[in-house]
Amino acid sequence: MIAVDVGGTGTKAALVTGGPGGVVAVKQQRRATRPGGDAVVEDVALLVDELRTASEHPVDAIGLVVPGIVDEATGTGVYSANLGWADYPFRDRIEAATGLPAAFGHDVRAGGLAELRQGNARDLTDAVIMPIGTGIAAALVLDGRISSAPGEVGHVNVGHGDPCGCGQTGCVEARASSAAIARRYTERTNRHVTGAVDVARLLTEGDVDAAEVWREAVDALAKGILLVAALLGPRAVVLGGGLALAGPKLTDPLGGRLDELITFQRRPELRLAALGDEAGCLGAALLAIDMLEER
Amino acid sequence: MIAVDVGGTGTKAALVTGGPGGVVAVKQQRRATRPGGDAVVEDVALLVDELRTASEHPVDAIGLVVPGIVDEATGTGVYSANLGWADYPFRDRIEAATGLPAAFGHDVRAGGLAELRQGNARDLTDAVIMPIGTGIAAALVLDGRISSAPGEVGHVNVGHGDPCGCGQTGCVEARASSAAIARRYTERTNRHVTGAVDVARLLTEGDVDAAEVWREAVDALAKGILLVAALLGPRAVVLGGGLALAGPKLTDPLGGRLDELITFQRRPELRLAALGDEAGCLGAALLAIDMLEER
Repeated sequence: MIAVDVGGTGTKAALVTGGPGGVVAVKQQRRATRPGGDAVVEDVALLVDELRTASEHPVDAIGLVVPGIVDEATGTGVYSANLGWADYPFRDRIEAATGLPAAFGHDVRAGGLAELRQGNARDLTDAVIMPIGTGIAAALVLDGRISSAPGEVGHVNVGHGDPCGCGQTGCVEARASSAAIARRYTERTNRHVTGAVDVARLLTEGDVDAAEVWREAVDALAKGILLVAALLGPRAVVLGGGLALAGPKLTDPLGGRLDELITFQRRPELRLAALGDEAGCLGAALLAIDMLEER
Repeated sequence: MIAVDVGGTGTKAALVTGGPGGVVAVKQQRRATRPGGDAVVEDVALLVDELRTASEHPVDAIGLVVPGIVDEATGTGVYSANLGWADYPFRDRIEAATGLPAAFGHDVRAGGLAELRQGNARDLTDAVIMPIGTGIAAALVLDGRISSAPGEVGHVNVGHGDPCGCGQTGCVEARASSAAIARRYTERTNRHVTGAVDVARLLTEGDVDAAEVWREAVDALAKGILLVAALLGPRAVVLGGGLALAGPKLTDPLGGRLDELITFQRRPELRLAALGDEAGCLGAALLAIDMLEER
């Protein structure tokens, strides 16, 4: 398979080998993402061509995943504000451009599928797999399967009142995404940081502003997870994305805050994702394998 | 089948006939619910015996549904604060007491199953079926099936700050359940009302206190539905229970408030449930039929 994960800034492609239970990337390529459905299909076709040429074996299928609102059933990119498409027929266009059968899906749900099949959600039938990076989203594992539900846990109102890019206020993402943590630290201190990783480091060094920004991020995340616990009762929340690299600096205070807030809900275990940056691509490959198996 | 729906105050039992696609109650019995697992099993066994004696045909199975936290897989009533049980093995005990095979489930999820198979959710694969009575709960229809998720939409924090019986603040249920609407009207006016139906009538008569209590209930409900829309993206919310008897007095302002609040989420259609008070019993019968089909 060739798997492609179209991100907000960069597009990752990988030549992948394996079966339904697990896959591994054997060769990778990256390029910057250009906005627009046509541009994405053009660039994906080039990446596929490069990897196909480099492959020692014939390529059976493509797995392509994109962000935004995705309709897996029809193979359509329904909407992406950042990347500028609406109702774009990705699956048909990529099949036409490459001559290969293509599976099409959502980046976060595909990454969740990879965590479920071969990452840190392997033993779970009810879980939330939540990558935290520029934004916050979630793949919902319900009754053993990745649900097609949107899982927009980044845009539930947890009451802090700050505005969010989505037009609402109080969103988890407005305080707890990696981007928000870095931005809020800089707003508070006028000191530049390159990302949430810097804020996590400053926190360890005893920086009081970092501690406050981090505390507010953890509070928003805990309240978002609490809502998910009331509605879905997951056994575990698997944290991924850039922010999860903070490890116990994230999970320790988050677990503590959850313990304070929780009443009747099942307290989800907090885990760190296993597959990191590769989850989307591996998930795209798993979608392609599932498609081939079904035929 | 004999179907039994154990409620917080009363237990309904029905002799039911039909198949997986639909059932109908041919004879019904009721009695007050006594708390405790053993008392419930004893009373259910009596109801079963009465209906079995009255039946012209042999009875194949029992379907039993209860409130609280339920583990369908093990047939256990995990917890009910109101009815006073913890980890009670209902399925085994009712089979032993009656000599009939029994299916065991959760009252709200069973009622949701009945709405899905033969009520106003028949055409839906992604929906939330939300009975509003003394409390507020929901059955989640995800990818065409009733999920085992808890669906506690009554106990998500929508920011109004009022305390809830569950120990949290801001719960939807604390402002929008039938019980809360009646209680809040009386607290505000010192006038007794028998239930939310009275408040709905007063609203029509131009009572300003009724209008304010109703507005606050609608606001809490709309915010709860908004959270569900972000996480699950249902095509419709099917409103049931006593409060749904208010019909357009509920759905018109609720739809208006949702339109004001919604941004990126799919706006769920608002529907009224079809099966009313009978949904739990019919759902219990469907669980029994599904069990027999699987054998």
